[in-house]
Amino acid sequence: MRSGRRPGSPDTRQVILDAARDAFAEKGYDTSSVRAIATRAGVDPALIHHYFGTKEKLFLACMDAPVDPHAVIAVIVAAPRDRIGNQIVRVVLGVWESPAGTAAAALVRTSISGEWHARLLREFLTTQILRHLAAPLGLDAAEAPLRTNLVASQLVGLMYTRYILRLEPLASAPVEELVEIIGPNVQRYLTGDLDLTGTGAATADR
Amino acid sequence: MRSGRRPGSPDTRQVILDAARDAFAEKGYDTSSVRAIATRAGVDPALIHHYFGTKEKLFLACMDAPVDPHAVIAVIVAAPRDRIGNQIVRVVLGVWESPAGTAAAALVRTSISGEWHARLLREFLTTQILRHLAAPLGLDAAEAPLRTNLVASQLVGLMYTRYILRLEPLASAPVEELVEIIGPNVQRYLTGDLDLTGTGAATADR
Repeated sequence: MRSGRRPGSPDTRQVILDAARDAFAEKGYDTSSVRAIATRAGVDPALIHHYFGTKEKLFLACMDAPVDPHAVIAVIVAAPRDRIGNQIVRVVLGVWESPAGTAAAALVRTSISGEWHARLLREFLTTQILRHLAAPLGLDAAEAPLRTNLVASQLVGLMYTRYILRLEPLASAPVEELVEIIGPNVQRYLTGDLDLTGTGAATADR
Repeated sequence: MRSGRRPGSPDTRQVILDAARDAFAEKGYDTSSVRAIATRAGVDPALIHHYFGTKEKLFLACMDAPVDPHAVIAVIVAAPRDRIGNQIVRVVLGVWESPAGTAAAALVRTSISGEWHARLLREFLTTQILRHLAAPLGLDAAEAPLRTNLVASQLVGLMYTRYILRLEPLASAPVEELVEIIGPNVQRYLTGDLDLTGTGAATADR
C-alpha cells in the first residue's frame, strides 16, 4: 500500500483513514465514533478533527469519492417535487458520463469483490446519499428508507447495465431520453402511492 | 484450471467450451458459428453437436447457468400480459432466493471483474434471456431491445442492492411486497406508453 506524500504526517493521516474504513465497514457509520476510530488508530481524537474536520468529512475522505455527494444531492432536491425522479436520473447519469464516472465505476467494481468493500459502499450509500435525499424531500420517516433503497436499486442497475455490461441499445441511448423514460419510475418509488405496510417500513430506521 | 472428469473425452469437451466462450465474448453469439468454434477448438463440428447438441445448448453449457433460462421465461410469459411485470419480479427473486442464487451471484461478480466476462454475460442476457422474453409478449420488434434492456436495468439493480450490497430494509423485505411495489415499474417498461422515438429503437436490432 502506498500512502500519498502530503504535508504534515502522511503516515498518521493514512493510519487514521485505514482505521476509519475498518470501523465503518465493521461497525457501521452511525455506531463508529471519532473517539473509537482514534483508539483504533492509536492517535488522539483531536488529530482526527485536525486532519479531517467532522466524522462525515472523514468518511468522504475514506471513500475517495469522485464527487461530493452532498453537492450532487443539493442539485437534485432543487428540482420541483414532482420532477425529482427525472432530476435524479439526469444528475446521476451526468456524473457517470463525466470523468468522475470512471472513479465511480471503480468503487462499484471494488464493492462487488468482497464483503468488506460491499459493507463500506452500503454504509456510504445509506448514510451519505440516501439519507440526505429523504429529509429535503419531506419523505415520511418510516417509509423513506425503503423508498430510497428502491431508487438505489433502479439507479445502480442502470449504471451496471449501461456502463459495465453495456447492454445495447441502453448503453447508447441519449441521456435526456432515459431521463424521460426512467424518471417516472424513480418518481413513483419516491412519492407514489405504494403499499408499504408489509415491508417493515414502520419499524426499520435506516 | 481443472477440467471435470466426465465419460468420453473430457479434454475435448473442455477445449470446445473454452473455444466457445472466447468466440461468444469476442465475436458475439449471433456471429459465432458452430463451424467457427470447431475451427478455433481444432475439432470437427460434428463433435460439438455430439457433445452439446445446438449452439444454444453449447452457450448454456459455457455459462454453467444455475437454472435453464428458457424454463424460467416459460413461467414468466405464462402470466396474463398485464401482470407480466409482477411475474418477472416474482420469478427472478424466486431464483435468487433459491440455492441457484449463489451461483447466479457468482456470475454477476465475475462479470464485473473484467471486460471479457462482462461481454460474455451481456451476450447471454441479450440472446438467451431478453430476446426470448420479447417474442412471446408480442413486443414491437423495434422497441423490444430497449424495453427489455430497461427491465434488465431494474432487475440487475434489485439483485445487486438486495443480495450483494444488502441495503436495508430492501434486503429484508418479503418477496411478495417487492412484487407489488416493483412489478408495476417493470410492467411500464415492457408495455407502457414510452416515448422511444429518440433512442434509436427504430434502428437497433438487439
